[in-house]
Amino acid sequence: MSERIGSIVIEAVTPQIDEGRHPVKRVVGELVRVEADIFKEGHDLLAAAVRWRQLTPVAEATGWTETPMVPLSNDRWAAEFPVARNGRYVFTLEAWPDGYRTWADELTRKVKACVNVHSELLEGAAFLKAAAERAEKAKQPRDAKRLLEAARLFSGDAKEAFTVATEAALLELGSKYADRSIMTRSGRELEVFVDREKAQTSAWYEFFPRSAARGDRHGTFKDAEALLPEVDAMGFDVVYLPPIHPIGTTARKGKNNAPKAQPDDVGSPWAIGSEEGGHKAVHPLLGTLEDFRRFVGRAAEYGMDVALDLAYQCSPDHPYVREHPEWFLHRPDGTIKTAENPPKRYEDIVNFDWLGPNREALWNELKSVVLFWIDQGVTLFRVDNPHTKPVPFWKWLIREVQDVHPEAVFLAEAFTRPKMMKQLAKVGFSQGYTYFTWRNFKDELEAYLTELTQTDVAETLRGNLWPNTPDILPEILQRGGPAAFKLRLALAATLSSSYGIYSGYELCEGHALQGEEYLDSEKYQLVRWDPNRPGNIRAFVAAINRVRRENPALRLYKNLRFYPSDNERVLFYGKSTPDGTNQILIAVSLDPFEPQDATLEVPLEALGIPETEAYEVEELLEKKRLLWTGPSAKVELTPDAPCAIWSVRRFTRKEASFDYFF
Amino acid sequence: MSERIGSIVIEAVTPQIDEGRHPVKRVVGELVRVEADIFKEGHDLLAAAVRWRQLTPVAEATGWTETPMVPLSNDRWAAEFPVARNGRYVFTLEAWPDGYRTWADELTRKVKACVNVHSELLEGAAFLKAAAERAEKAKQPRDAKRLLEAARLFSGDAKEAFTVATEAALLELGSKYADRSIMTRSGRELEVFVDREKAQTSAWYEFFPRSAARGDRHGTFKDAEALLPEVDAMGFDVVYLPPIHPIGTTARKGKNNAPKAQPDDVGSPWAIGSEEGGHKAVHPLLGTLEDFRRFVGRAAEYGMDVALDLAYQCSPDHPYVREHPEWFLHRPDGTIKTAENPPKRYEDIVNFDWLGPNREALWNELKSVVLFWIDQGVTLFRVDNPHTKPVPFWKWLIREVQDVHPEAVFLAEAFTRPKMMKQLAKVGFSQGYTYFTWRNFKDELEAYLTELTQTDVAETLRGNLWPNTPDILPEILQRGGPAAFKLRLALAATLSSSYGIYSGYELCEGHALQGEEYLDSEKYQLVRWDPNRPGNIRAFVAAINRVRRENPALRLYKNLRFYPSDNERVLFYGKSTPDGTNQILIAVSLDPFEPQDATLEVPLEALGIPETEAYEVEELLEKKRLLWTGPSAKVELTPDAPCAIWSVRRFTRKEASFDYFF
Repeated sequence: MSERIGSIVIEAVTPQIDEGRHPVKRVVGELVRVEADIFKEGHDLLAAAVRWRQLTPVAEATGWTETPMVPLSNDRWAAEFPVARNGRYVFTLEAWPDGYRTWADELTRKVKACVNVHSELLEGAAFLKAAAERAEKAKQPRDAKRLLEAARLFSGDAKEAFTVATEAALLELGSKYADRSIMTRSGRELEVFVDREKAQTSAWYEFFPRSAARGDRHGTFKDAEALLPEVDAMGFDVVYLPPIHPIGTTARKGKNNAPKAQPDDVGSPWAIGSEEGGHKAVHPLLGTLEDFRRFVGRAAEYGMDVALDLAYQCSPDHPYVREHPEWFLHRPDGTIKTAENPPKRYEDIVNFDWLGPNREALWNELKSVVLFWIDQGVTLFRVDNPHTKPVPFWKWLIREVQDVHPEAVFLAEAFTRPKMMKQLAKVGFSQGYTYFTWRNFKDELEAYLTELTQTDVAETLRGNLWPNTPDILPEILQRGGPAAFKLRLALAATLSSSYGIYSGYELCEGHALQGEEYLDSEKYQLVRWDPNRPGNIRAFVAAINRVRRENPALRLYKNLRFYPSDNERVLFYGKSTPDGTNQILIAVSLDPFEPQDATLEVPLEALGIPETEAYEVEELLEKKRLLWTGPSAKVELTPDAPCAIWSVRRFTRKEASFDYFF
Repeated sequence: MSERIGSIVIEAVTPQIDEGRHPVKRVVGELVRVEADIFKEGHDLLAAAVRWRQLTPVAEATGWTETPMVPLSNDRWAAEFPVARNGRYVFTLEAWPDGYRTWADELTRKVKACVNVHSELLEGAAFLKAAAERAEKAKQPRDAKRLLEAARLFSGDAKEAFTVATEAALLELGSKYADRSIMTRSGRELEVFVDREKAQTSAWYEFFPRSAARGDRHGTFKDAEALLPEVDAMGFDVVYLPPIHPIGTTARKGKNNAPKAQPDDVGSPWAIGSEEGGHKAVHPLLGTLEDFRRFVGRAAEYGMDVALDLAYQCSPDHPYVREHPEWFLHRPDGTIKTAENPPKRYEDIVNFDWLGPNREALWNELKSVVLFWIDQGVTLFRVDNPHTKPVPFWKWLIREVQDVHPEAVFLAEAFTRPKMMKQLAKVGFSQGYTYFTWRNFKDELEAYLTELTQTDVAETLRGNLWPNTPDILPEILQRGGPAAFKLRLALAATLSSSYGIYSGYELCEGHALQGEEYLDSEKYQLVRWDPNRPGNIRAFVAAINRVRRENPALRLYKNLRFYPSDNERVLFYGKSTPDGTNQILIAVSLDPFEPQDATLEVPLEALGIPETEAYEVEELLEKKRLLWTGPSAKVELTPDAPCAIWSVRRFTRKEASFDYFF
């Protein structure tokens, strides 16, 4: 026999990406705010709840928890649930008619209009009896008893019955045991991947360990260890190493990307694999795996994570090429296909046949590479050119790894078309490189960072801002001198909660070979860096990172807001913690050549400061305090000091705040 | 053995409503424009197509047709397919790498860079041979032969091979037989319901046939027939009758909604059903079913459809109540539940138990009601209060009916909360009543009509604008006299392609009982209308409907655009056909009391008129022609003539356009 059914519409559920095909991202300790349109025909009062659980890692999986939703306006409902642990969560929504409250509400209106409610009271008693049965089933005999007692009163005096029927406690109990057999459930379970904080908040320092010796000899992990105090002094919390594996010799590139290497040329570390091993080996000149693990351990002592480069490509000398020719693409003449971007051919690199018939074994091997390095203590991976590999592979790989190691963080180096960048974030990359690298002026910075942090894009893509990389020395750094290096670093470090630089940046290295290629690029040779090079901005970098560390507002991603400044060369913005205990304003000159003054429009309302009240601002780089009043503030920025970061504090203690005042 | 797989991302497909859970709506003869984001890893050139077919009515179902998509920019692709017939269509997308074109493109770049392409030519020949096999399979031996011949040339002279390889004809052939075994298909088949034009474009005239005698006796269908010439003269193309069924006597309402009827009171036609029959019967005093069919036939001779009221509710005297008590809700004391909106009770109405265990039989019976009236020649249904019945019922009913009778049109009388109104449109209602009835001023009209016609709402909801209904005599009509009736009609008839009035409107009937209830409402009594009542606006109505009929731009729904006027009391807007052959501008005064002047900003660019060129405008109500130049136009509107409708025509024939000029 057919049962009674429900008819509630649940739609426009947020957060949700592409019909729930991809998880949204949060970090440990956040609340997930869920909203939905919920309504049905007629006038019934409704009840709704979010049901949620942690799914992975399996050992930490929980059962369902239910959080009641509350109605906002216009049929929109909301609830928040906490995500306290690193892993994958799911949530779904349920809604049902709150029969008893609906009945009580109608009863009240009828009683006020002096309508005879005899029949209604019988109906109400039936509601309560059914609720009592459900309470009994839920093993809540005390609730069941209270419901039955109330029901019994309904057949007595109508006035007394009405009083009992509409008491808050009974309304609550009636709701609690509502008939949920006719509930409606939202379509699919929606996913939330909850990262550890570092996936959102990180300051990366990239360097080539082979240059760590700072001399003519090939650097080692031990040399790299010796650099850690310097990196720590600058305040970074991730050290990222380009590939550390054996380098192929076939078609090895020479200095400055010369097509032919000289005998002593070290080759590009991205041409991975030689007779000495592949993606699970370390380059013998860098040291041993043991040395590497020691390096990771030393970094950890400084509170730094080590990030490795995940470059899924092989030199023709990689052991895979010999052992698994079926994993590679071949031309009809039997030769293996080398990488190319016609007319360019990269003959030191061969690519996998990603989607071919042998993909299962290939994908599993590539997954084992990640697991291997996680076993060595590495949980951050900067992924090389993910946009040249199939999207379904990344979706599979990242989920497979994070199901077991939710602490793994993947940064996509996808300098590619906008929709592909967003797609990689959707399918699981924890962070992504962005176009920030080429956004220099006010309108374009405001528009792009607003898109990144204030739209649905921020549900999956966390932009990690890099003012330079070994591949990209942007024009502004080639031309703008130390001022450019300072202002671009200040922007990167304060516009996003994650940013990074490639070493040499702090020394203002700005010499290009052509285009955006570094002259004498470390990609092809050892470089001797002098950390104390005149004009270096190490102190500035350290100051910026100190301010980031000390101010929780700068460690959040979605809280960026732009405010007006009257000078097109001065960008003005702010970040606050949700509770308002840390409120930061930032002004950065975009001009590396000339001083720039500006009048800034301080967002008093957002800061909760009355128009006429004096408030304290502390400039955090110079540690200078000032009193401001009203929404206009003047700032003078110079090429030497192109950035001001203020912490805003109200004077909230008045005499009336103290006990002795009373 | 595992096959090679595809990895193309297809997302953000439009048009699409709620992840494809509901069909979008179009009308016969339109093109459906489909867009999607389509991309994959790497640099392959892609090809994509929309595949579409008509699904219902089953007798007209077709196989799949494929329309190639073209790339726009930023990885967005588009195609259009025609929907020539009334019924349900589905479409889906496929994308695949265009292997041969990708290869030829890379070859070209390599040849230009003087790279040896011997290996590439072998690869190209392999492409063509595989394509030839697919051509053979597709029974295109001539294509297969051409492909093989070309492939053979590739092993000869490289220069000649290159010329052959990149010829347009061969590129096309290579694409045509691309390897689609690795294509990617978009998720689900998306639906388009294609209505006949009347679902989008209609002018409704509602009248009570029982008042058609225009005397003291009860009117009949024959009397109603006699009114058709008048309705036709006013230019309407739908005549809509409130329920024509037997009316219950239990708890019958008296004149002006008196709780108790007098013996001669006729009752509300919405209290459907008596011993004389229910939803498939006609009220004996109106005539016979035969009379009704004759009325429908006469209306058709005037080009008018007859619309009936679908009010799924019963008087307690309805045969269903006796024959199917299981279809109704009962109180615990065994009494049947009457309709109520506490503290009000509607004791002349009982409601169905929509979602109860007997719903299958109930729903089928209610469907048979629709089919019964379709058999009598009625295909338009104005549905009474659909928001008080379950959404899943409507989804089921409308689909069941339209699968067999795609010509059926359902108008939702859902004056309810905004999300429910939109939901009913999503689940199938062809048109809906709107809040237009209460939107009187400029900002609110612009905002609301923009939402209705220019957002995703327009994919499913076609607003049918009613300035009055038997339930609603809005304040502006109570207070504004004939000027208000004129301006509200002009707005309704030109803002949307569908509108309607309830009779008495053309006579400027504006007397209210209280609130928005008509005094001596026809809902409860016979009313004697005098069509020639002084001050009537029948000629104005006729003129407006003539202009609607003669101007295709006014018969479209989504083409509404608002333009600036410098007077808050003057609304200025326009509509054009996509081909620009009919361009209409409209200015309506929103002030029924005072004359209003305005300077209008003519959208010259949208009209394709240079700033300095003189152009002709014809005011279509007064049939006056004018020459305008430049973007500013003055208009004077008065309470007597509160509306101007201009057809804009460029002088496109210059001497150079004629043959003899040369």
